[in-house]
Amino acid sequence: MKVYTPISVCYEDTDAGGVVYHSKYLGFAERARMNFLHEHGIYCKEMAQSEKPCGFMLNHCEINYKKPAYLEDELIVETELLELRGAGFDCLQIVKRGEEVLVEIKVCVCCVTSEGRPTRIPANIRSKLAEIS
Amino acid sequence: MKVYTPISVCYEDTDAGGVVYHSKYLGFAERARMNFLHEHGIYCKEMAQSEKPCGFMLNHCEINYKKPAYLEDELIVETELLELRGAGFDCLQIVKRGEEVLVEIKVCVCCVTSEGRPTRIPANIRSKLAEIS
Amino acid sequence: MKVYTPISVCYEDTDAGGVVYHSKYLGFAERARMNFLHEHGIYCKEMAQSEKPCGFMLNHCEINYKKPAYLEDELIVETELLELRGAGFDCLQIVKRGEEVLVEIKVCVCCVTSEGRPTRIPANIRSKLAEIS
Amino acid sequence: MKVYTPISVCYEDTDAGGVVYHSKYLGFAERARMNFLHEHGIYCKEMAQSEKPCGFMLNHCEINYKKPAYLEDELIVETELLELRGAGFDCLQIVKRGEEVLVEIKVCVCCVTSEGRPTRIPANIRSKLAEIS
Repeated sequence: MKVYTPISVCYEDTDAGGVVYHSKYLGFAERARMNFLHEHGIYCKEMAQSEKPCGFMLNHCEINYKKPAYLEDELIVETELLELRGAGFDCLQIVKRGEEVLVEIKVCVCCVTSEGRPTRIPANIRSKLAEIS
Repeated sequence: MKVYTPISVCYEDTDAGGVVYHSKYLGFAERARMNFLHEHGIYCKEMAQSEKPCGFMLNHCEINYKKPAYLEDELIVETELLELRGAGFDCLQIVKRGEEVLVEIKVCVCCVTSEGRPTRIPANIRSKLAEIS
Repeated sequence: MKVYTPISVCYEDTDAGGVVYHSKYLGFAERARMNFLHEHGIYCKEMAQSEKPCGFMLNHCEINYKKPAYLEDELIVETELLELRGAGFDCLQIVKRGEEVLVEIKVCVCCVTSEGRPTRIPANIRSKLAEIS
Repeated sequence: MKVYTPISVCYEDTDAGGVVYHSKYLGFAERARMNFLHEHGIYCKEMAQSEKPCGFMLNHCEINYKKPAYLEDELIVETELLELRGAGFDCLQIVKRGEEVLVEIKVCVCCVTSEGRPTRIPANIRSKLAEIS
């Protein structure tokens, strides 16, 4: 199941080349993953404040820039869960302007303790993610 | 007339102090001013590509930080035109969480040519802004 | 006593208007204040991990944009302590390109506990700041 | 030949997880590539203002996050040219804290015209890059 997150490109997102700055797509992708988690009842704050505090972190990402985005473009980020593992998950996130694919992002997210050590995704979070996929 | 723009706080917006990083409110304020302009049919791209290319720039701002915002807070930025001048306008932008006022931002925006020189706001843009106030 | 911090403008700092994006100057100013604190033996990490954890936060700032900065400009941020108070301090920070003044920033910094409540600057930190001024 | 660029981690670079926010490494990498280009006499401004205006853009990147960086860490970005192609080049950029490897970034940079179309790297720029590798 895909979740769709709209993004309006502001000056903040652009650079002197007249296009969206390349690192901003990682910020757009985070906004979209947050939306994805919230849509399914998962809140990072609750994870951080639970009995066994934990959180999600990126351990790998790959970005394929196909076409530039411009000021005031209305973009959509499509977020899809590719694989759910014991201690993390993979997402494919596609930034589109209408039907045009501008940027493809693949992220590997892992679950970590408050000390930053990899840990299994808590059962209640895992079951919510499992429903999604 | 006030325009209301929702902002969901992501990790990107926060810092190691656990709160929204102070410069991010200027980004939130830009998103809100963009929304404000678009709501009234004003597009920066059109201004930049018109016969006499021009754009809006900040020449002054003042920020009053009253209370911190946190990860996953759902904020609203209230944007209000305070004064419309020949070559610019002033806005008051208030960042709220529910009824709580977190941050107050006053910005002075000026209209500049593509070479960055102050210029009068084009008549068609000005009349749209005048309707607002 | 002024502390001087060099900044090289990268694409990341610019926007589609071809100039440095207005909120970036607050980031430049933070880099410069960090440098200012480090030059005088003050580390935020130590403050956060001390017996009575505390940190510095902005509660007010005012920015005066006089001239734009451009890609690959080599800037200097001059940081000067204006006033040292019991629970905070004020700084004037001037962004220059050579002798040209581009942006003036006045910040009011306050000392807060780990719960975000205003508190007196610890004596050891205060004495280091007092030496500066 | 490697070029080494120092980065001091500020609040701006961190997030509420207490670590450097993942997209910031792309900004650090850009600062390091800018340094790399300048060290070898290549300036983006000159490329943009030359007879046949052109510039460098990312078309692909891959980031491997191995260990987190923290507030006030003093990092070094090592930048190395991996391959020089007719219309672009590949870099390996390694973010280190002392001898520890924190993040590895591989970027594919392409040369584009002012309209964003791929183009050969101008001969004078190319010869400077060829000296490097």
